[in-house]
Amino acid sequence: MRAVALGGGHGLHATLSALRVLAARGVVDAHVTAVVTVADDGGSSGRLRRELGSLPPGDLRMAMAALASDDVAGQRWTTLVQHRFGGTGALAGHAVGNLLLAGLMDTLGDPVAALDEVGSLLGVRGRVLPMSREPLDIEAEVTGLGSGGPHRIRGQVAVASTPGRVRRVWLQPQRPRACAEAVAAVGAADLLILGPGSWFTSVLPHLLVPELRDAVLAASARRVVVLNLAPEPGETAGFSPERHLAVLSEHAPALRVDAVVADVAAVPVPDRLHRAASSMLSPGGRVHLAPVAADAVMPRHDPVALADALDAVVAGPQAPHPVSTPPDGQTQHSGGS
Amino acid sequence: MRAVALGGGHGLHATLSALRVLAARGVVDAHVTAVVTVADDGGSSGRLRRELGSLPPGDLRMAMAALASDDVAGQRWTTLVQHRFGGTGALAGHAVGNLLLAGLMDTLGDPVAALDEVGSLLGVRGRVLPMSREPLDIEAEVTGLGSGGPHRIRGQVAVASTPGRVRRVWLQPQRPRACAEAVAAVGAADLLILGPGSWFTSVLPHLLVPELRDAVLAASARRVVVLNLAPEPGETAGFSPERHLAVLSEHAPALRVDAVVADVAAVPVPDRLHRAASSMLSPGGRVHLAPVAADAVMPRHDPVALADALDAVVAGPQAPHPVSTPPDGQTQHSGGS
Repeated sequence: MRAVALGGGHGLHATLSALRVLAARGVVDAHVTAVVTVADDGGSSGRLRRELGSLPPGDLRMAMAALASDDVAGQRWTTLVQHRFGGTGALAGHAVGNLLLAGLMDTLGDPVAALDEVGSLLGVRGRVLPMSREPLDIEAEVTGLGSGGPHRIRGQVAVASTPGRVRRVWLQPQRPRACAEAVAAVGAADLLILGPGSWFTSVLPHLLVPELRDAVLAASARRVVVLNLAPEPGETAGFSPERHLAVLSEHAPALRVDAVVADVAAVPVPDRLHRAASSMLSPGGRVHLAPVAADAVMPRHDPVALADALDAVVAGPQAPHPVSTPPDGQTQHSGGS
Repeated sequence: MRAVALGGGHGLHATLSALRVLAARGVVDAHVTAVVTVADDGGSSGRLRRELGSLPPGDLRMAMAALASDDVAGQRWTTLVQHRFGGTGALAGHAVGNLLLAGLMDTLGDPVAALDEVGSLLGVRGRVLPMSREPLDIEAEVTGLGSGGPHRIRGQVAVASTPGRVRRVWLQPQRPRACAEAVAAVGAADLLILGPGSWFTSVLPHLLVPELRDAVLAASARRVVVLNLAPEPGETAGFSPERHLAVLSEHAPALRVDAVVADVAAVPVPDRLHRAASSMLSPGGRVHLAPVAADAVMPRHDPVALADALDAVVAGPQAPHPVSTPPDGQTQHSGGS
C-alpha cells in the first residue's frame, strides 16, 4: 500500500513516524512519500527564503528526519541536519540541514533533486517532496482584530500567531503550480493522509494548490484526515474538532474522505463530530476515535498509537469511488474508541 | 610511497593536485594526506571561527576538494561544498562546505571526525587533517610600518596584507598541541612536501607547532620544499626565492630538506638560490629548477608540470639520514632545466 502524507512541521513528522511503524508491520510500503508545505516565513526557513529566495527548507528537513534510516550513518547525518547553530551571530538558530538544502537547491538548480540528494545521505526510504517548487505565502482573512474588520494578514507567522479569528486562507500566488512529482505520487497512492498539523498553515495549503487539490480529489486512494489533539493558540484558538472539519470543507467543498481519526480525549462530544463529519465522509467512511496522544507535556501524537488507528481505518472495507458521489448524510460511523 | 603535503589555501591545492597525478602514475600511494593550517581569520572561515569558535574550515575544505573523487557523486558534493552563497545577507560569501564542516565539528565534537565524514561524502582517497585541533592565530614582527617599529601585528589577514616587511612570525598560543593524527602521518610518510603557498601564513606555521616540527625534523621521509612562483603582495612583497628559503631556515634552523623545487622562470639568478639552499640541503639533496607554472594570468602551478618535477626529485637517490648530520656546504645540485 503506497502511502502519501500531506502536511508540514511537527504534525507531518508524527504522521510519517506512524507510517514507518506501519511499514515495519508490512501494512504500507516502506517507500513513503511526504508532500510538504512551502509557505513558512519564520525562523531559519524564513531567513533563508528572504535572503536567498529559496524554498523554505525547515518543514522539508523535518520530514526527511522523520524518514531517515535508523542505521549509524543515517542517524549521524540526521543529527547533523537537525543541529542548529548556537551563539548570537549571523548563523544562530539556522539548522545545518536548512543550509545544506539551500546550498543544494542553488547548485543543483532544482529543489526535488536537492531533496533526493539529502534523502540518500540520510538513508530515507521514500521521498520528501515540496507541494510546489516555488516559495508560497499564506494570506488570511481574520476577524476580531479591531474596528474595520475583517482584516487581511499575510505570512505563516502572522496567520499562526494572530490574536484574531482566522476565517479563510489563500495562497500568494493564488494559483501556484504544483510540484509534478507530488501530483504523480498522490495519483499513484493507495493511502492519502491529511493532518495533523497547523490547520491553516500546514494542512489546508495543499488543497489550495489547484493541481494538487485536483489530484487529491481524483485519487483512488483512501483519504484519511487526522485531527489535531488540541486547538493551537493563534490560528485555531478555541476551535472544536468539528470546526477543524468545517474549515477543511469550506476550503475544499468537493473533498470526501474515508476516515477521520481523532484522539478520544480531544473530542468532548463525539456526536457533534459525527454530525460534522457526515457531510464529508465518502459512503462507507467513518470517524475513528482512539487514544492517539503521547504522554507528554506538549500535545503530541504517539507514533505507535497513531499507527494503530491508521491500521484500523485502512483494515476496514474501502468506500466505493469515484468521490464525485454526493454525500448522502447516512454514512456509517464506527465512533469507537 | 606515502605522501604528506603540508600547507594551506591555493598552494596546498596545487600540491595535492600534483600528488593526484603522481598517484595516477603509481609513483605515490593513492592515499595522500594533507596537513592544513588552521590560523585563517578572514572571509567565511574567519566569520565562522569568531561566531562559533570552530576551526577555520576554508583551507580544510579546499584541500578536500583537491582530493575529491572524480566520479559523479564526488563531483556533485564537491560542487556543493565549494559553492558560496550569494546575495548581500548574513550568509553571503559563506562556502556551503564551511558551514557543513562547522556543523559536523559541532555535532561530532571532533574536527578530525568531521573531516573524515566530509571526506567520505566527497570520495576523498586520502585524508585531510588540521595541523592542530585548536584554532590558532599568527602574529608577526613587521618593520617599515612607521616610527617606533618593529611592530607586532596579529591575524592571518593582517600579516598577509601588511604594507610593512614581515620579519618573523609565531603562533598564539605559542606552543599549541599538534593534531596527533597529523604527527603520525608525518612520521609514517615517505615523502613530505612543504609549500607552495602563502609563506608566513600557510607554509611556515606547521614548523611552529612543536610536535609537528619535531615530527618533520625526525621523519625518515624525503623532504621537498616547493617555492612560490612569485612574491605575494603583502606578506612576501619583493622576496626573492633565496629570501623564501632563508625565512624557512630562520624559523626552523634544524630543518634539512632533500630537494627544493622552483619554477625556472621565477629564479632570476640560479646561483644565488643554490648558495641559499646549500646550508639547508641534506647531503645528496638538490635544487630542482623546472617549468612548473601554469599558463595563467595569476601565478599558479600546473599540476602535471609540478608532478613531473616532484617525480624527478623523488626518482633520484635519497639522501642519507638522520637529518641531524650538519650541512657540509658541499651538497650536489642538479639545477636542471
